[in-house]
Amino acid sequence: MSSEKELKKKLIEPRTLKGFRDFLPEAMIPREKIIARIVDVYRSYGFCPIDTPVLEYLEILMGKGGDETDKQLYRFTDSGGREVGMRFDLTVPFARFSAQHLAEIGTPFKRYHLAKVWRGENTQAGRYREFMQCDFDTIGTTSVNSDVETALVINDILERVDPRSNATFTKFQIHLNSRKILTGALDKLGLVDKSTPILRALDKLAKIGKDAVVAEMNQTAGASEEQARAILEIASAQGTNDEILEGLEKNLQENDLGTQGVADLRTILDAARAAGAPADRFVIDVSIARGLDYYTGTIFESFLTEYPKLGSVCSGGRYDNLAELYTKQTLPGVGASLGLDRLFAGLEELGMIEKTASTVDVFIPFFDASLSSKYFEIAAGLRRQGIGVELYPEPKKLGAQLKYADKKGIRLAIVVGSDEIRQGVVMLKDLRSGGQEEVKLEALAESILRTLASDPTPQGNA
Amino acid sequence: MSSEKELKKKLIEPRTLKGFRDFLPEAMIPREKIIARIVDVYRSYGFCPIDTPVLEYLEILMGKGGDETDKQLYRFTDSGGREVGMRFDLTVPFARFSAQHLAEIGTPFKRYHLAKVWRGENTQAGRYREFMQCDFDTIGTTSVNSDVETALVINDILERVDPRSNATFTKFQIHLNSRKILTGALDKLGLVDKSTPILRALDKLAKIGKDAVVAEMNQTAGASEEQARAILEIASAQGTNDEILEGLEKNLQENDLGTQGVADLRTILDAARAAGAPADRFVIDVSIARGLDYYTGTIFESFLTEYPKLGSVCSGGRYDNLAELYTKQTLPGVGASLGLDRLFAGLEELGMIEKTASTVDVFIPFFDASLSSKYFEIAAGLRRQGIGVELYPEPKKLGAQLKYADKKGIRLAIVVGSDEIRQGVVMLKDLRSGGQEEVKLEALAESILRTLASDPTPQGNA
Repeated sequence: MSSEKELKKKLIEPRTLKGFRDFLPEAMIPREKIIARIVDVYRSYGFCPIDTPVLEYLEILMGKGGDETDKQLYRFTDSGGREVGMRFDLTVPFARFSAQHLAEIGTPFKRYHLAKVWRGENTQAGRYREFMQCDFDTIGTTSVNSDVETALVINDILERVDPRSNATFTKFQIHLNSRKILTGALDKLGLVDKSTPILRALDKLAKIGKDAVVAEMNQTAGASEEQARAILEIASAQGTNDEILEGLEKNLQENDLGTQGVADLRTILDAARAAGAPADRFVIDVSIARGLDYYTGTIFESFLTEYPKLGSVCSGGRYDNLAELYTKQTLPGVGASLGLDRLFAGLEELGMIEKTASTVDVFIPFFDASLSSKYFEIAAGLRRQGIGVELYPEPKKLGAQLKYADKKGIRLAIVVGSDEIRQGVVMLKDLRSGGQEEVKLEALAESILRTLASDPTPQGNA
Repeated sequence: MSSEKELKKKLIEPRTLKGFRDFLPEAMIPREKIIARIVDVYRSYGFCPIDTPVLEYLEILMGKGGDETDKQLYRFTDSGGREVGMRFDLTVPFARFSAQHLAEIGTPFKRYHLAKVWRGENTQAGRYREFMQCDFDTIGTTSVNSDVETALVINDILERVDPRSNATFTKFQIHLNSRKILTGALDKLGLVDKSTPILRALDKLAKIGKDAVVAEMNQTAGASEEQARAILEIASAQGTNDEILEGLEKNLQENDLGTQGVADLRTILDAARAAGAPADRFVIDVSIARGLDYYTGTIFESFLTEYPKLGSVCSGGRYDNLAELYTKQTLPGVGASLGLDRLFAGLEELGMIEKTASTVDVFIPFFDASLSSKYFEIAAGLRRQGIGVELYPEPKKLGAQLKYADKKGIRLAIVVGSDEIRQGVVMLKDLRSGGQEEVKLEALAESILRTLASDPTPQGNA
């Protein structure tokens, strides 16, 4: 009794840090599937992968150092006495990377980067201290064509986020705006030097309503009620995209920057139509301001139609100069970031994530110990034909083995005993329907593929 | 002049920490290709992905705490006062994970985990402080069938590591041994309690030669010259696999553990043959001992035939108890780890890594500004047919644009001006061969796929 206690005392409690989490197969399998599709989309536009270290010099991460506390950096002194930190986003490392390798990478340069970042924030519901970002950017060009491409990439990614099938997902909208329009409007009102507090107030429109926004614009930026209402009128423009753009065009006709912003959005809508995007996919939304200092042109946000409260799942925009802290070279660009964890929370809420804990569609129970080499032979043959197979490692009651497979979500089982081997057949069981058929060994792969195709949403290795 | 100096002074030098590195596209593209293939192999056997946090409680990482300095942990106190560290391998987090989630995951449990780990080692040639590990393990079973599967997974992965094509790579061998054989032999010699220093000496055989090993066995383990030579004779057994196994069988016939080790290796060789592996792929090699305390059964190492000096690129073995520090539950298992960075260094040395900085095979130069929507339409059409396309974002001299594409390794360019649009054709240029042909728009995808197939080693999105 006391020795057992002692043994218990010696064990280290297996636990993760607050704000951190493990991913079990049933969470990782759909994540990996969606990540692979996101990467496919990036690549299909010629975006290239890069990677950077998790640890950076603290001075790189802190930049001008003002908002370190906001970022809640994981920072420490390494054993060589260097002040280092774990990256809190992928933009700062990309800026450092671009400045450092500019001669090698050249411009225009299109990169994607899928990686974890860390922030020691207070953990609230659904907020983690370690999370994945999926960023893509085009730098070294001011062309609106790269804004178009950014919009198309966001569209193509979201069309493919339903992990249950390869069908096009359509229940989302991409909101477009341009900081040029907002800045142009403020310029006309003589408020351009107050743009930071005004846009900060505007960003709260959906949350706090018009009157509170007007009051805030007055208090923090000294905007008159008339000025504030004029901004809100522009920002709340309703109608079709064409109607909104025509209204803005009239409103901003003597302002070059604002007019340019309207033209940019028109170009994006035209090109998106040419590329085959549905007419209602893109929505001009003058109320989105997205942050305050960084973006200077087109702005993107995107929302799941059936879960708008989730907030934007993929956001970004155009900026004038990526890496000014690290190089004198001006690097304009445009890009966006997919919030994988938020997107996943949304898909889960909408019932789109199937619980499967398997990466294969076929299971071979270990039925007869003398046949183990035969099992390996059958499994290898199926794998050569692109069919994943899990073989149970040891003899056990058949029922228990099939239960193991079914629990994991594996659909088919191949039951083979010595009788079957003699006759050159196997028993192919559909664990989902309960059906079974005797199949000749040489026709096995074909039968499996046919059975899997008979269900529109096969699990596992789809 | 002085203001320019001031500006320079204000810039933060863009640099990475010692022992850390950036990956540019030409390094990342082949890495991502090979990682995707490795994952495909894991999945085809039913191994499932998991992920764990980069940061763990220090007590989890340090375990019994003895060898912290060896591991050269990145450790610090977080802002909540917790002692934490960055993982230095994927085995310790997996042990913690298994103990913590055992009820949910059940056994047998097969997982893979591809992730970065950190060690503050002194940086020597080719050694980094941040590197990628690719681990896979089967836990919860003592069955030799899982050893077989481990061998087959290593084989299937290495058969697919040539990033230049989908052809089977064959220039590698997998060395097999069993700690049961070594322990059995030491048992017969009455040296089993000296196994740690003896196997440590044996591990140096390839490096320091027989005489030095004999001397070390004598000095550190008190083995007589006769005993040491007897161990070396077993460890250096030459001949065919069958001859070596027969010799061992005779030598160890009265030792149950040793006999079991021989039987395990025979089972693996038989099953590998049944699964279609070439006869010379697996080599019984009694000289490999692989670490000292952890492994208890089959041991795997694997070598590139044309670059044996590189050392083992994928190694592993069977162990008796994965998570004894964290749970009373005994978790036997078997697994291996692919050293991706070492493998890559090898493939590079052997000239197998092509320098490509593109993820697409097709480039559309921006030839006529009035046609931008047309370019987006053509590109979108090709992408829907699975063909990746990079569109240059802005007007520039055609020659300069084609040079940009060629430098990145993009093979084909589609040149389209307003004349071509009127005629419903495009000019398809092969930047590698210099050839070009006029192709009807509706036959473009087909012509592209045919041209790409005409080269056995297309770059990019293969």
